[in-house]
Amino acid sequence: MPTISVNLTTQEYQIKIENGLATSIGREVQQVWSARKIALVTDTNVGPLYQAQVAAQLTQAGFQVTVLTVPAGESAKSLEQAMSLYETLVTANFNRSDGLIALGGGVVGDLTGFVASTYMRGLPFIQIPTSLLAQVDSSVGGKTAVDLPAGKNLVGTFYQPELVLIDPQMLETLPQRQLVTGCAEVVKVAALVGADFWNLVQQIESPTAILDKAPELIARSIAYKTQIVMADVQESGQRRLLNFGHTIGHAVESLADGELTHGEAVSIGLIAISRLFEQPTQIAAQLQTVLERVGLPVTHPLLQSPALFEKITHDKKNQGALINIVYLKAIGQPTILQLPLTQFSAQLKMKQRSF
Amino acid sequence: MPTISVNLTTQEYQIKIENGLATSIGREVQQVWSARKIALVTDTNVGPLYQAQVAAQLTQAGFQVTVLTVPAGESAKSLEQAMSLYETLVTANFNRSDGLIALGGGVVGDLTGFVASTYMRGLPFIQIPTSLLAQVDSSVGGKTAVDLPAGKNLVGTFYQPELVLIDPQMLETLPQRQLVTGCAEVVKVAALVGADFWNLVQQIESPTAILDKAPELIARSIAYKTQIVMADVQESGQRRLLNFGHTIGHAVESLADGELTHGEAVSIGLIAISRLFEQPTQIAAQLQTVLERVGLPVTHPLLQSPALFEKITHDKKNQGALINIVYLKAIGQPTILQLPLTQFSAQLKMKQRSF
Repeated sequence: MPTISVNLTTQEYQIKIENGLATSIGREVQQVWSARKIALVTDTNVGPLYQAQVAAQLTQAGFQVTVLTVPAGESAKSLEQAMSLYETLVTANFNRSDGLIALGGGVVGDLTGFVASTYMRGLPFIQIPTSLLAQVDSSVGGKTAVDLPAGKNLVGTFYQPELVLIDPQMLETLPQRQLVTGCAEVVKVAALVGADFWNLVQQIESPTAILDKAPELIARSIAYKTQIVMADVQESGQRRLLNFGHTIGHAVESLADGELTHGEAVSIGLIAISRLFEQPTQIAAQLQTVLERVGLPVTHPLLQSPALFEKITHDKKNQGALINIVYLKAIGQPTILQLPLTQFSAQLKMKQRSF
Repeated sequence: MPTISVNLTTQEYQIKIENGLATSIGREVQQVWSARKIALVTDTNVGPLYQAQVAAQLTQAGFQVTVLTVPAGESAKSLEQAMSLYETLVTANFNRSDGLIALGGGVVGDLTGFVASTYMRGLPFIQIPTSLLAQVDSSVGGKTAVDLPAGKNLVGTFYQPELVLIDPQMLETLPQRQLVTGCAEVVKVAALVGADFWNLVQQIESPTAILDKAPELIARSIAYKTQIVMADVQESGQRRLLNFGHTIGHAVESLADGELTHGEAVSIGLIAISRLFEQPTQIAAQLQTVLERVGLPVTHPLLQSPALFEKITHDKKNQGALINIVYLKAIGQPTILQLPLTQFSAQLKMKQRSF
């Protein structure tokens, strides 16, 4: 099956992608873990669909499984929820030789990864991402996170899973809006990579077409992301390319206060940043065509909000007085531009009304 | 000045040890950090003694300093306290290019390190340990931690500081009981190392003698610990040697519920484990002489508690059905013995009454 190996200085692990992989979870986990206690962390949406099947396979493979269910939605990504998971692990006598498995979307993956990286200073964990966003993006790269009242992902670690198992068929149970939101990250990567990958996303003419091409879209997205992550685990250099569309996207997402999904905000951010920095290359128009075909929004009234710039300056990635902007010179030709925040602000304000 | 370099695969930093170093903090920090915001984390005991002096130097060196004071004592090592620090950092607009400095003992160092490793997935931090325990042990090795209601150090990370500045003269303001508690870790390391280091600790004939020899005791303790940490950051192999005295020590400390300091419990644990495993080598007697001279306890009624064994099995380091025991064949000749927990339990129960 398509397998991507991630080789970091400190760790090495595989990402496996195959339709139907959900039926061989037990065997796959056995290949990396000896017999041990496993906490299977899932949420109230995904749990009813898949936890029984996954837990049964793990039990049959000789593992001692405890299912931990958190509430579906972003609110589970809190220190309070992490604390409650820690306490359950203590009570069940988990130690560093046991393991956690995240079965769910980005929220479950981020939270489980954070708990795995900090409980007793780290125990092994495995990702089974079930949303498109998690399958193409958040399950790869070793970022874990919880939110603070003051903002999303403000607390977290860099911590790698020991295995990532991706079954694109799991997407069939995903609500369409969630499927589409994941597609925004796919389009982002395809635009960064260009060539064949860009050609592939241009063939997606409707939301259902995402499902047909899912295995290839996922494999290509991950191949690009892992290549960048291997070169730059801590996000100081090339990893910044992955922030394409996110500078404005994060700010819009935050101001929308739950009304926009991450992918929808990224879609809006991709178009806004391209309009802001494009010379007469028509990048924004090309991106817009692809994004609109799957039903992603490409503009939003919040782009004209006076609060937009302030949100951007509070983003943890916008360090000090400088901001790193990713834009494309052409499809497949990304550039990182470091600008004084003041200059970015001026440019943003000048064009803000035309968004 | 005596400087120990720590070279890990992912990071490299220096530990500087010198009497009077507290007067050149500004200059030292300038050598590793560019101008930035610094949160100086201290507690209600250490703050009044040193924070003004340290903050003034940092300000003069061009840093923008915020002092964050936490309550003195173990209760500050909580997720609630970490959360309160995160929120202060958000409010003060700290991002990944700023820094944290821990000014205090082990509690302040562990908490600050944890916050530094998790706020925005990690920002740089520096340790200025002010207790002997922190100077010889907890400031070195990259372990960060907070406690859970269920037990100490159950949540944490492995995260290295960018610099450790140790001024042994700061120990002059340390209460004698705290000075003595730190000495237990020094004796532990000297017994593991043997030779000159063991001869040196044998010359400590009273608590005040610790102060006279502090610079050398600290430098030798750290030299040994860093050598082990460099070979084994994640505590899977040789790093276990540092647990000498801690298997029983941690359990006694936990059962004593605040009545014993960490060093006092380790002192008791060193003697107990040596008695439990010594062949006719008289290790326990040699250790006892040195520990008693500085006023450390070498036995405790809790060693006979029926709860002792259960506490030991709940320790995060006692993985699965096996336990790793460190004991000495002779001074300077440590051994790691892996035993079934059941066998250790039987041996413990058999000898428990003679402690």
